[in-house]
Amino acid sequence: MKNFYISKSRRVRSTPFTKRIEEQGVKSYTVYNHMLLPTTFSNVDEEYLHLKKDVQLWDVSVQREIEISGKDAHQLVQLMTCRDLSKSKVGNCYYAPLVDINGGIINDPLIYKLDENRWRVCIADSDVLLFAKGISSAKNLDVDIFEAKVDTLAIQGPKSTKLMEKVFGKDINNLKFFKFDFFNFNNKKFLISRSGFSKQGGFEIHTDEIKAALELYDYFFKIGNEFNLKPGTPNHPERIEGGLLSYGNDMDLSDNPFECGFDKYVDLNDDIVFFGKESLKNIKKKGITRKLMGVKIDAKSVDVSKGIIMKDLKNKQIGQLRSAAFSPKFNKVVGIAMVKKDFCNISEKFKIELNNNSISGEICNLPIV
Amino acid sequence: MKNFYISKSRRVRSTPFTKRIEEQGVKSYTVYNHMLLPTTFSNVDEEYLHLKKDVQLWDVSVQREIEISGKDAHQLVQLMTCRDLSKSKVGNCYYAPLVDINGGIINDPLIYKLDENRWRVCIADSDVLLFAKGISSAKNLDVDIFEAKVDTLAIQGPKSTKLMEKVFGKDINNLKFFKFDFFNFNNKKFLISRSGFSKQGGFEIHTDEIKAALELYDYFFKIGNEFNLKPGTPNHPERIEGGLLSYGNDMDLSDNPFECGFDKYVDLNDDIVFFGKESLKNIKKKGITRKLMGVKIDAKSVDVSKGIIMKDLKNKQIGQLRSAAFSPKFNKVVGIAMVKKDFCNISEKFKIELNNNSISGEICNLPIV
Repeated sequence: MKNFYISKSRRVRSTPFTKRIEEQGVKSYTVYNHMLLPTTFSNVDEEYLHLKKDVQLWDVSVQREIEISGKDAHQLVQLMTCRDLSKSKVGNCYYAPLVDINGGIINDPLIYKLDENRWRVCIADSDVLLFAKGISSAKNLDVDIFEAKVDTLAIQGPKSTKLMEKVFGKDINNLKFFKFDFFNFNNKKFLISRSGFSKQGGFEIHTDEIKAALELYDYFFKIGNEFNLKPGTPNHPERIEGGLLSYGNDMDLSDNPFECGFDKYVDLNDDIVFFGKESLKNIKKKGITRKLMGVKIDAKSVDVSKGIIMKDLKNKQIGQLRSAAFSPKFNKVVGIAMVKKDFCNISEKFKIELNNNSISGEICNLPIV
Repeated sequence: MKNFYISKSRRVRSTPFTKRIEEQGVKSYTVYNHMLLPTTFSNVDEEYLHLKKDVQLWDVSVQREIEISGKDAHQLVQLMTCRDLSKSKVGNCYYAPLVDINGGIINDPLIYKLDENRWRVCIADSDVLLFAKGISSAKNLDVDIFEAKVDTLAIQGPKSTKLMEKVFGKDINNLKFFKFDFFNFNNKKFLISRSGFSKQGGFEIHTDEIKAALELYDYFFKIGNEFNLKPGTPNHPERIEGGLLSYGNDMDLSDNPFECGFDKYVDLNDDIVFFGKESLKNIKKKGITRKLMGVKIDAKSVDVSKGIIMKDLKNKQIGQLRSAAFSPKFNKVVGIAMVKKDFCNISEKFKIELNNNSISGEICNLPIV
């Protein structure tokens, strides 16, 4: 595949860590929430193996945080998501699909409850800020909505706990999965959650003061050698194997939560009010006709940006490949695909066309084990 | 400046023309509305000179078109913009800033009135779709809102009329600036507007059928030699000199229309209902404290992605540089900056810091002539 350069501008924002990351040898970027997201330092295979063995620091500042506060904050957050937040607790993170009035997925953020009337919606790649502003203006809600000046570092990998302990102290061990709390470094308080876009365990550190954030960044690399800490990025084969979905890649507005396996995050009981509830009730009643599944493909690489259609052995279209990456573990390509219901069977065979060759693959579960 | 590669994925969509553009030697991309926008084929200076002399074909499919139709379509479109659309006519394009409830700019689309109850909002880089969906759901409006399956080619440059005549016939000459109509090629109808993101004159061809669009693309290059047609891209120095603002670069949600010189697109009379009207009334009453101005800087290049502060000769901050590019015409950098009101004077001197050197510049009007 030919390589192309990325053009920088003010519209495609750098992060506070961009300068350091470039000094550390980042090779490529993508753009996510109008901001630069590093995608490789060495190569994806090497980084995959390292992430599963040691620990990495990622600049994931692109996970922008939409802060919603005020008397009607809970009402607004609930209006946007199909997940029941009525029993939500301060200190918890909620993975919560946002849906439009048709039940189509607008985003799949992790929502942090900072206070009874104060939330942070940590978004995937779409302007949730504008959805929230549209609703709030039209309903004249008593809320403040803005993109917080927060940038995020992720510490991911099996050695993340040991590394974090060394920086923030033993208390970090008390932090449970999808909880957050405040921890000190150099007399500065950081909001830290046990979360992240890998299945190797880890933390996300939300920084709101650039100077302290850069000191922390440098300190990690000062003391990180004993854990073989390296700069890294969300790793495609690792997250595909782990069944971690990527908004815009695996699903978008034309897909509903049931098709994406989000059934446990859909609450249709009478007490909850959100847009799209009637649509989701209808979809649930009728049943879905397709579903996201794992796939394994007998190839070394597949470029999904070209739009890859999956066919059965009789040449009938059975699905669409949405993400794909070479897996060092399986020594073939793993992927995530939207597959017609009749073909959502483990080991179901299919084929795709790749450079005029017919390549075979098979359906599997997510996560891919 | 070091170069970095761009990572492609399904989330960062290709356009129907991407394959052809890559065959024609595109070198770099940016991402705009979650899609690839070519930024150079040869180099920006060469393309600047060619654009001002001959004619270029641009793939500007990233200008996504949000279609809003139905009984309440006019109401919804008006709610989003501060421009009075009550006397709008079918066949016209309206440059219309969209504002939030604080008067902050959400986008600066060209809005096409296709029919009394059918509009296309051709957007700059932000998810206007979600703003429209938020309002519509909350107000329970009778509208259909979706991103149209439309991709756009721009023909720009002084020879654009001659080239278009050869493809679509003499009638194309009757099309006035910011009007649109339908024209035939190969028995297929194309919506064509006299518009585009350059000051060299030109057209935008809105295509909704990939096969016909690709035939048209190839035909342009088959017959384009006599006009010295080349593939091109929106050209930064040309559009900066022309005073064409770029959303996300020159202005964003933290700026209001008066600060951006959009006074003639702000209507505050009693008949118009849009969010942000009260805020804009207050801003108008108080008067603005800063404004977008042109600048000329004694340098060969300035990287605005690093955040460039402008200071007066007494070291006082007077503004922020937002776009900058080397201008072959002035043999120095031209730019667009948000400048404190007291310093918005022609020929006012300022300095910026560049690689530890103090570089001088001066304020000028937009367009920069």
